Amino acid sequence: MKLLTLRLPAGTGNGKSTTAVRQDGDTLTEIPGFSDVGALLKDPNWEATAKAANGATHPVDGADLAAVVPSPGKIICVGHNYRNHIKEMGREVPAHPTLFAKYAESLIGPNDDLALPQESDTVDWEAELAVVIGKTGRRIPESEAAEHIAGYAVLNDISMRDYQFRTIQWLQGKTWEKSTPFGPALVTQDEFTPGPLMTSAVDGDVQQSTPTSDLVFTPEYLVSYISTIITLNPGDVIATGTPGGVGHAQDPKRYLQEGQVLVTTIEGLGQLTNRVVKEA
Amino acid sequence: MKLLTLRLPAGTGNGKSTTAVRQDGDTLTEIPGFSDVGALLKDPNWEATAKAANGATHPVDGADLAAVVPSPGKIICVGHNYRNHIKEMGREVPAHPTLFAKYAESLIGPNDDLALPQESDTVDWEAELAVVIGKTGRRIPESEAAEHIAGYAVLNDISMRDYQFRTIQWLQGKTWEKSTPFGPALVTQDEFTPGPLMTSAVDGDVQQSTPTSDLVFTPEYLVSYISTIITLNPGDVIATGTPGGVGHAQDPKRYLQEGQVLVTTIEGLGQLTNRVVKEA
Repeated sequence: MKLLTLRLPAGTGNGKSTTAVRQDGDTLTEIPGFSDVGALLKDPNWEATAKAANGATHPVDGADLAAVVPSPGKIICVGHNYRNHIKEMGREVPAHPTLFAKYAESLIGPNDDLALPQESDTVDWEAELAVVIGKTGRRIPESEAAEHIAGYAVLNDISMRDYQFRTIQWLQGKTWEKSTPFGPALVTQDEFTPGPLMTSAVDGDVQQSTPTSDLVFTPEYLVSYISTIITLNPGDVIATGTPGGVGHAQDPKRYLQEGQVLVTTIEGLGQLTNRVVKEA
Repeated sequence: MKLLTLRLPAGTGNGKSTTAVRQDGDTLTEIPGFSDVGALLKDPNWEATAKAANGATHPVDGADLAAVVPSPGKIICVGHNYRNHIKEMGREVPAHPTLFAKYAESLIGPNDDLALPQESDTVDWEAELAVVIGKTGRRIPESEAAEHIAGYAVLNDISMRDYQFRTIQWLQGKTWEKSTPFGPALVTQDEFTPGPLMTSAVDGDVQQSTPTSDLVFTPEYLVSYISTIITLNPGDVIATGTPGGVGHAQDPKRYLQEGQVLVTTIEGLGQLTNRVVKEA
């Protein structure tokens, strides 16, 4: 099953500006009562509710999509989780996952403009497999972690490298407003297993291309590790790290420029297509 | 004005488990319609609403208080922001604020038990002045930042040092479940100016004692700096960093032990009193 968050035209949707929808082929069907996929996942019966929903329909073609979970309670990002990216950044394969945060205000929809801020000219791409939590848990054993994963989506952990490396903590380079595309759909975990190819491309030039099976720490390991520290709740997002090919590690270094189009794809999950637009 | 979040006994409060209250002397007055101080701050007229409120009253004595803002949209923590702590950790006074995150699930009330996890025996204190945002803004000039600050509170940025230093990113040592006391009240900014003494004490032994005027980066500078990166919203919290005296920098190192009582105080803001209790 594919679940998405659809923006509704002003004046429709009983005052809601977005709604959760289910995608069947070329059709999106509203899931009544749920303003987005994050709200849906808080329903313990979300899977049955989503399957049975038969609200108003919309064509996929031309749909105005929001970030699939627009306001996660937590976005937990993982660094140093693909061997080829660890190598290009000059680091060792780690014993523990490197974790940092991103705030919800940085998320944008799968086809939204990506905001290039006035303050940084070192804006870089990081294609990532995102895990979305579907069931609350603390100290989840790795063997039970799959039950807590609602599904997967594509996320690009856009990074302002100058701010990222201003201090020893990365947060300020990782959480710029309206910079992180996330979607297009949550593909439920019964329909996706990490493995398929993930790519990023700038104006058609492929920058990153690595199978999502090359993760050092798997989604199940990460769910178990993070939930040792803190409760994972429905709608929480784990961005599982990026492979080699970021612009900052190229020679010469490459960064996103105004007007470029960044395309981020994971086979079986879908594609993010974001035009880079300088902020006014 | 002092604003707090009060836990209501089961079966009262129209099904709400908490309510925002105003403190006048020994009395707490409910602010009807607002489940906590975070919800109140989302009302553009929160200050007038809080002043005028005349809901049910409760004695301060014995009140069961939640974290003053129980679920901030963002908790942004600042590292290396007092000269004496920078020195004890062996670092240089920085050119830019060091920022990292904490998630809302780590917050506890001002008198709640502090959860000592099974997984860490290096649990340390970090007394901090917390800034609470009262008005939305992006790229706020430093000269206008005061208008965006609702007020101040006390926070102890409890840090599991082993996890903090497992990798180069601190998040996993900073966000353990139910470990971060925050409160007791939001004291509105017309009634508090950073300067008064901040202390932390373990079983009565003072560990930290530094005036809150010794910040390298002021609250107004931090509001301006962070809002360059991302929109600050009502209820967001900036934990402005800790002074010298943390246990990890002592010789021999000292950490919190089961049964100890940690008291964190800022003159004019109030006191957090938290018993350290090992998780089952």
